Amino acid sequence: MGIIITLLTDFGTVDGYVGAMKGVILSLAPEAQIVDLTHAIPAQDIRAGAWALDESARFYPAGSIHLAVVDPGVGSHRKALVIQCNEQFFIGPDNGVLSFAAAYPRRVRVLDQDEFFRHPVSSTFHGRDIFAAVAGHLASGVSPDRLGSATVEWTQLERPAAHKRANRITGHVLHIDHFGNLITNISGELLGSEEGWVVELPGLVIGRIHSTFSEVPVGQWVAYIGSGGMLELAIREEQAAKQGYQIHTEVILCKR
Amino acid sequence: MGIIITLLTDFGTVDGYVGAMKGVILSLAPEAQIVDLTHAIPAQDIRAGAWALDESARFYPAGSIHLAVVDPGVGSHRKALVIQCNEQFFIGPDNGVLSFAAAYPRRVRVLDQDEFFRHPVSSTFHGRDIFAAVAGHLASGVSPDRLGSATVEWTQLERPAAHKRANRITGHVLHIDHFGNLITNISGELLGSEEGWVVELPGLVIGRIHSTFSEVPVGQWVAYIGSGGMLELAIREEQAAKQGYQIHTEVILCKR
Amino acid sequence: MGIIITLLTDFGTVDGYVGAMKGVILSLAPEAQIVDLTHAIPAQDIRAGAWALDESARFYPAGSIHLAVVDPGVGSHRKALVIQCNEQFFIGPDNGVLSFAAAYPRRVRVLDQDEFFRHPVSSTFHGRDIFAAVAGHLASGVSPDRLGSATVEWTQLERPAAHKRANRITGHVLHIDHFGNLITNISGELLGSEEGWVVELPGLVIGRIHSTFSEVPVGQWVAYIGSGGMLELAIREEQAAKQGYQIHTEVILCKR
Repeated sequence: MGIIITLLTDFGTVDGYVGAMKGVILSLAPEAQIVDLTHAIPAQDIRAGAWALDESARFYPAGSIHLAVVDPGVGSHRKALVIQCNEQFFIGPDNGVLSFAAAYPRRVRVLDQDEFFRHPVSSTFHGRDIFAAVAGHLASGVSPDRLGSATVEWTQLERPAAHKRANRITGHVLHIDHFGNLITNISGELLGSEEGWVVELPGLVIGRIHSTFSEVPVGQWVAYIGSGGMLELAIREEQAAKQGYQIHTEVILCKR
Repeated sequence: MGIIITLLTDFGTVDGYVGAMKGVILSLAPEAQIVDLTHAIPAQDIRAGAWALDESARFYPAGSIHLAVVDPGVGSHRKALVIQCNEQFFIGPDNGVLSFAAAYPRRVRVLDQDEFFRHPVSSTFHGRDIFAAVAGHLASGVSPDRLGSATVEWTQLERPAAHKRANRITGHVLHIDHFGNLITNISGELLGSEEGWVVELPGLVIGRIHSTFSEVPVGQWVAYIGSGGMLELAIREEQAAKQGYQIHTEVILCKR
Repeated sequence: MGIIITLLTDFGTVDGYVGAMKGVILSLAPEAQIVDLTHAIPAQDIRAGAWALDESARFYPAGSIHLAVVDPGVGSHRKALVIQCNEQFFIGPDNGVLSFAAAYPRRVRVLDQDEFFRHPVSSTFHGRDIFAAVAGHLASGVSPDRLGSATVEWTQLERPAAHKRANRITGHVLHIDHFGNLITNISGELLGSEEGWVVELPGLVIGRIHSTFSEVPVGQWVAYIGSGGMLELAIREEQAAKQGYQIHTEVILCKR
């Protein structure tokens, strides 16, 4: 089995776009194993793409190639990148979509060698003509050094930090998942111990931190440290997001 | 090509969850061939997951591993299972999601050997930390005997039976598919012959059983034995479900 | 790695249908590499399926097998086809869904050899029992000559042409993609040069043709030649389709 190439886009699956990218990859690297991460990133939502990539990529073996195309600036002067990080490769536009997953890169290169592009290069679909083509060449054995010039300047999204001061932590909702659970920017490490904290949303005291949602009755709010290591707020077997809480909603923890 | 591992979840594809599971599998079994069955099972709908798994798994070759994660009780004391059935393997929570597809199991084991888990095991994402990890180990050659202790107690969902008495059969809608077709719990075998039966929904006489929906005009109701061997009720090229009929709606057949 | 088999359907992914097709293929051709193009073609929309297949298939390597199942006439007397074109194979119902991608076929065959079907053949799911089974046999090495008799009569959808007369081109919207962009039937070739044309929709003058949407401010209408070579109309980073423009909306270009 060949190199693993994962795909993450905001293309949806109604058109032929994702299929075209896969065809370009397989034409160059017939042995590649293509893995769909998701094509359901909200259109042009770079931050949501960066989040989902980070949540997935860390679990892949060394040598994997991750292709992330959420690219509202396609055709403009934004650069295209290949990043080596944790013995994996990340390919995509230079707009931050790679920056959570490739947070501590070993090497960042600008894709400026057009011999590895598909020609003619369209001005609206670099996913197919640049990113998929470069991934195919990389998977087929082209050295990453040949793909472009090293750079130290690239776009990294800020991860808005939670604040801790004595017996109070202030953070916010970072992501709402498919189940309607609210994932915050407050890490389990920041808490120290999970004991003694009381969790609040605007207008709502959720209470102490549980180990998992099945510790509370169905339909009840629960706070717990989620599978990504962050504090999550949910209503058991319901969509907490339907209560009107959104990304950026403030979350407060107090010791009592 | 390696072992086939199919994935069925209620995770949707907006987050990194499915991608993370695939990464864990491929890190342990790089030769595995991962096949997406569906990630669109309605959230926490164990019965819908059991149905879709059964409709798919029977068509896979011997040796395939089926991973089904619809798991509202994750983190509670519900058991985790690997089941051998029809020379295939079924891995998932012990809540019935495996019980339609693995209806006549050769062996059921409780996943109690945590050397085959991914550590630390989160309390909210056993799909990644237990089920995907165990599937990866199994695909990489670990004997199923080593994965856990045999048991005879596990959760099996009831398949609500249709009733036949003389010239009358009473059943109900079991599933509504993507096309809005109503799939019933009345099997073709129960009918004996398809001749002479008249099919009714509450307030609606559909009429006799046809061979397929293209035997009636577009827009007209039609009853036929579907591809899974069960009586189905549809409106040709329209969504029958939009007429207000739901899962559990009663279906009556009479001989006239 | 074995033969590439792509899948395009209108089955959605909520049921077990797609999973069943993959199982049938892998049982016959365990080495096949299955690639999902899309399962989100609108139900029974043959034209949308034909479009998406054409946008994808051209990028695949020689020898690829494309399976396209949008099949409102399943179970009727419509024929089933395997088409050789551009060193690739196209398998599906004879209703036009293959006709954009396989526009200049080398050979068209009717699938009339039922030894290559899965039995019993249901009357509602030829995707599983005929098309997937034939694809599996073809991928496992069965000669295409054995799959059926050659024919010259098959269903080809019309591609409604744009009209050019002196300084005026009249066309229409052919497809609306996931981003809400309007893709027209006016090709870049028909324009000659992109210079001098002014693009109009009913009640709206969009203006000249740009190279890409990032040349205009966010929220503004823009016309450009898209990645498939056709004129596209979009609102940058918004859903142009939400303005009420639909498939068949007239598009006019004038030289001024």
